Amino acid sequence: MATIKDVARLAGVSVATVSRVINHSPKASEHSRQAVNSAMAQLQYHPNANARALAQQSTETMGLVVGDVSDPFFGAMVKAVEEVAYDTGNFLLIGNGYHNEQKERQAIEQLIRHRCGALVVHAKKIADDELIPLMQQIPGMVLINRALPGFEQRCIALDDRYGSWLATRHLIQQGHQNIAYLCSTHPISDSDDRLQGYYDALKEHNLPCNDRLVALGEPDEIGGEQAMTELLGRGKPFTAVACYNDSMAAGALAVLSDNSVRVPEEMSLIGFDDVLVSRYVRPRLTTVRYPIVTMAQQAAALALALANKQPLPEVTNMFSPTLVRRHSVGSPT
Amino acid sequence: MATIKDVARLAGVSVATVSRVINHSPKASEHSRQAVNSAMAQLQYHPNANARALAQQSTETMGLVVGDVSDPFFGAMVKAVEEVAYDTGNFLLIGNGYHNEQKERQAIEQLIRHRCGALVVHAKKIADDELIPLMQQIPGMVLINRALPGFEQRCIALDDRYGSWLATRHLIQQGHQNIAYLCSTHPISDSDDRLQGYYDALKEHNLPCNDRLVALGEPDEIGGEQAMTELLGRGKPFTAVACYNDSMAAGALAVLSDNSVRVPEEMSLIGFDDVLVSRYVRPRLTTVRYPIVTMAQQAAALALALANKQPLPEVTNMFSPTLVRRHSVGSPT
Repeated sequence: MATIKDVARLAGVSVATVSRVINHSPKASEHSRQAVNSAMAQLQYHPNANARALAQQSTETMGLVVGDVSDPFFGAMVKAVEEVAYDTGNFLLIGNGYHNEQKERQAIEQLIRHRCGALVVHAKKIADDELIPLMQQIPGMVLINRALPGFEQRCIALDDRYGSWLATRHLIQQGHQNIAYLCSTHPISDSDDRLQGYYDALKEHNLPCNDRLVALGEPDEIGGEQAMTELLGRGKPFTAVACYNDSMAAGALAVLSDNSVRVPEEMSLIGFDDVLVSRYVRPRLTTVRYPIVTMAQQAAALALALANKQPLPEVTNMFSPTLVRRHSVGSPT
Repeated sequence: MATIKDVARLAGVSVATVSRVINHSPKASEHSRQAVNSAMAQLQYHPNANARALAQQSTETMGLVVGDVSDPFFGAMVKAVEEVAYDTGNFLLIGNGYHNEQKERQAIEQLIRHRCGALVVHAKKIADDELIPLMQQIPGMVLINRALPGFEQRCIALDDRYGSWLATRHLIQQGHQNIAYLCSTHPISDSDDRLQGYYDALKEHNLPCNDRLVALGEPDEIGGEQAMTELLGRGKPFTAVACYNDSMAAGALAVLSDNSVRVPEEMSLIGFDDVLVSRYVRPRLTTVRYPIVTMAQQAAALALALANKQPLPEVTNMFSPTLVRRHSVGSPT
């Protein structure tokens, strides 16, 4: 591949001049600018981003750590952050943490090694006391979906517990008394907080909490199918189910359909997240909205402002979920 | 942030020695190795990946260009490529082309500027004559879902036209004569090839091709809903529908359900891709399998072998789709 020296030679200028042209320095004359640009085109020269980054001790690369890009929820997060990155002339470097402490550590470390100035991190397993020194070192690091004590202003999170309470209360308000819950097996705070919100609502309305009405599964369609099958098999009566997320609800809906249990006539179902699936399953899923796109955009804008020491945008550090009423919830018969 | 000089000073060794330890050079003594490692830990020093890349004129970063990570199809591709990258100690740099020529060009250029040795590219809009010089310059560049003349050995593609022919023939074999098609509006070869395969099967069985039985939409659930609604509105009778992909089929299924048209009793429906959605919509979707995970793994392994001048793995350059029979196709009544 052609080097900057080849470009300088062909353009008949110094390497320093080529570098000035590449970096749009006003010091470069119009004549040398033209000579260098035509030489770069002729030699198909690609400026070395690593050299540029090294010289400037910063990059035009923004970093993002997500749980798993193949999950539509994180796909939406990536897209939202990337749009902000592109609009500000940054390129996005993505790492997956897979809700695994070691992988989260690796992903963050790699992004720091690439000297991403702005960093949006979704990491649930890595401990607070390991994140704190990193937050202190990297001023442009922002956490999403996590509130780190002492760094609340650099965290964009959602009140999961409240969202699950909202969903369960909605079922109670429709007259349901025996409400089951499909819980995620992922050992992250979201799982515990959402389960807790379900318990909160039951207790608040003096309804019994019964472990036989809580079934566990992976937070995807397959996990939802398995948890719903398990729940039906236990033979403990219930008329409504609150789910950890929409994917599990979609899986549960499929199992109910296979068993000819009509939703919402015979069974009410409510999801969480409001990802696309909730709109095209039938009946359309009543769910709780996780404003992930807005949250991701704000996290990205905040990270960029912090990294570039610009005035900080106004952001919401703790978002509240809202109820989205569609057609999967009715009153018990 | 601590620099390599700080580490050298604290460890009481030269910068060159620190660099040797970081790069696991055998020249570094055990004593200096210990001194440097403890100094790096104490100073929370993160080796600069850009400096390392510059020194070695190569990176441990693998590049991937996809259409849009928020699309589950590409999510699966990213995950498959990343697993190969991680297993070989590489970090993944991802760019989205959004089926837009300019964005595809930007994404590829950025990955080259970051000196990714191995590059897996899904780009449909950028012209052959622009790709060819890039393929010549970057020996580790592999194309996925595209066959570039002269570089067939560095392309991993799927026979879209055959897959769509397979789907349509399956409907014909069930006795359908009036078969509609939901076509993607994305101006990429996949759209044309799949539509062509549908026409091939009709002609082969002497069935008329009628433009009023072809409806267009974005290749997602919403697009499928709109195209199916358009098709029903035209009032031209048909008993089966072949779809560009599973997402459009899921949207179509929702519209049929809203209109109380029973699938497969009154209407047969077949998708394409076999992404997760095809498994949890009801009835389960009969579809054509796109072996994207295998294809992505092979593309990644090939790109790494080419980049590192290692013996090439055995790969399939042109994959054939296969039929997946589930419950959305029946015989016309």
